[in-house]
Amino acid sequence: MRNLKLTLAYDGSDFHGWQIQPDHITVQAALAAALLKITGETVLPQGSGRTDAGVHALAQVATFELASPIPTLGLRIALNDSLPPSIRVLEVKEVPTGFHARANARAKTYRYRIYRGDICPPFLARYVYHHPWPLDEGAMIGAAGEVVGEHDFTSFAAVDPDRAQRIAQAEARAASERRLCGAASAEHETEDAPTNIRTIYSSQFERVGDELVYTVRGSGFLHHMVRNLVGTFLLVGKGSLTPGDIRRILIARNRSAAGATAPASGLYLVSVDY
Amino acid sequence: MRNLKLTLAYDGSDFHGWQIQPDHITVQAALAAALLKITGETVLPQGSGRTDAGVHALAQVATFELASPIPTLGLRIALNDSLPPSIRVLEVKEVPTGFHARANARAKTYRYRIYRGDICPPFLARYVYHHPWPLDEGAMIGAAGEVVGEHDFTSFAAVDPDRAQRIAQAEARAASERRLCGAASAEHETEDAPTNIRTIYSSQFERVGDELVYTVRGSGFLHHMVRNLVGTFLLVGKGSLTPGDIRRILIARNRSAAGATAPASGLYLVSVDY
Repeated sequence: MRNLKLTLAYDGSDFHGWQIQPDHITVQAALAAALLKITGETVLPQGSGRTDAGVHALAQVATFELASPIPTLGLRIALNDSLPPSIRVLEVKEVPTGFHARANARAKTYRYRIYRGDICPPFLARYVYHHPWPLDEGAMIGAAGEVVGEHDFTSFAAVDPDRAQRIAQAEARAASERRLCGAASAEHETEDAPTNIRTIYSSQFERVGDELVYTVRGSGFLHHMVRNLVGTFLLVGKGSLTPGDIRRILIARNRSAAGATAPASGLYLVSVDY
Repeated sequence: MRNLKLTLAYDGSDFHGWQIQPDHITVQAALAAALLKITGETVLPQGSGRTDAGVHALAQVATFELASPIPTLGLRIALNDSLPPSIRVLEVKEVPTGFHARANARAKTYRYRIYRGDICPPFLARYVYHHPWPLDEGAMIGAAGEVVGEHDFTSFAAVDPDRAQRIAQAEARAASERRLCGAASAEHETEDAPTNIRTIYSSQFERVGDELVYTVRGSGFLHHMVRNLVGTFLLVGKGSLTPGDIRRILIARNRSAAGATAPASGLYLVSVDY
């Protein structure tokens, strides 16, 4: 079997997110359908991470095994012929056996676009969050820097009862292992790992014309983490919080301490580093 | 009654064109519904011209009479709150009684965007025509200039049996009037006028990054005229026609002499001059 790596861009507006789901159109399902049509093989490409409904990608990465000897360039062209124009395969590459889009990801970059103009052009409506109301953008720039470094991002993670239970179970298991073997529990930085600790390498706002653009690069991101960070930075912009409150919210390890989840339309998975 | 002029932008992708139609979502119907909701008045804004399904507008103009004393700025805000994000009202202005978006239009500018890159970004798919195949762009630039001036554009007009009949009737009427009164028949340049003669003030292609952009300004345009011009210029780009053939096609006054209608997604009504 060959191991293949896809790099793809998508307009998330019309998809129910990345992950395959019954009765919903998803990016992963569209890719699997195109691969079946082209090669006759039933494969499920594994993404570097899930993106939610409405979230876009400039360069999502997915890996899968394929028996077909189809050349990588031919596969790219066939996939783009078969997929809807809202998903484009930018590159198909042969990678060593065992390379996995999620497990091998070292860092990811996300971007969030806030349109600040009075009237949002109809051609941008699907691709930004329109927020024309007053914001102290300087305070937001200050707040963004507060999350750089290694932190427990529980306050910014979607409350997911299953996940909370998984973490509790893993912690109990680790504690029991420590009792038995005296070994420290391993820390993982992939999205499925039962810890909410992540490292943020850079986190900044920038004004680009009528847009306020947030770019964040980190070791990994929890579910809704970027949108919850943006929702909290917006509270700083509105004056409900100060930049210094960000540290207090991180320490609280409590989702209710942070701001609301910003809308999906403004969010882009920009790139994945390996 | 007040006479109001709206300037509006829309993403035509999700609309069945401008004109109200039973069982279809159209821009005119969405505007009428929003005006009814805001003012309680049933009015049908009259556009400067119709745009087809999938065609966009950067500054379409529409006029209508209203009894409500609602201030123009308040009406603009209320309309944008009520309309889908794919339609934005850029301006509402009070204009003298009798001013009509179509009848008073002196000139219109359209733009057509052809994406030339190998892979069309998913965020542009709704807003351009993707044509990655070889084109002699220099020949297309030459061909575009051939339509400047006053011409009969029958070869570039959609074949519309009703319209052909209307023109024949009008010509018969004009001939009979000439016989009776010795008067020359008036030439109109609005889209409903029963003549296919139009004046093109400028017509040019320009390379803008990965896009080949056609911009045309004229006294008025027949149904499908810009898309049929672009479809014909594409035949010049492919080498099936020479720039000199454009004159021959104009003189033929026959739709089948020209190229196919280019897809709607690349077309924008840019502005209307009064």
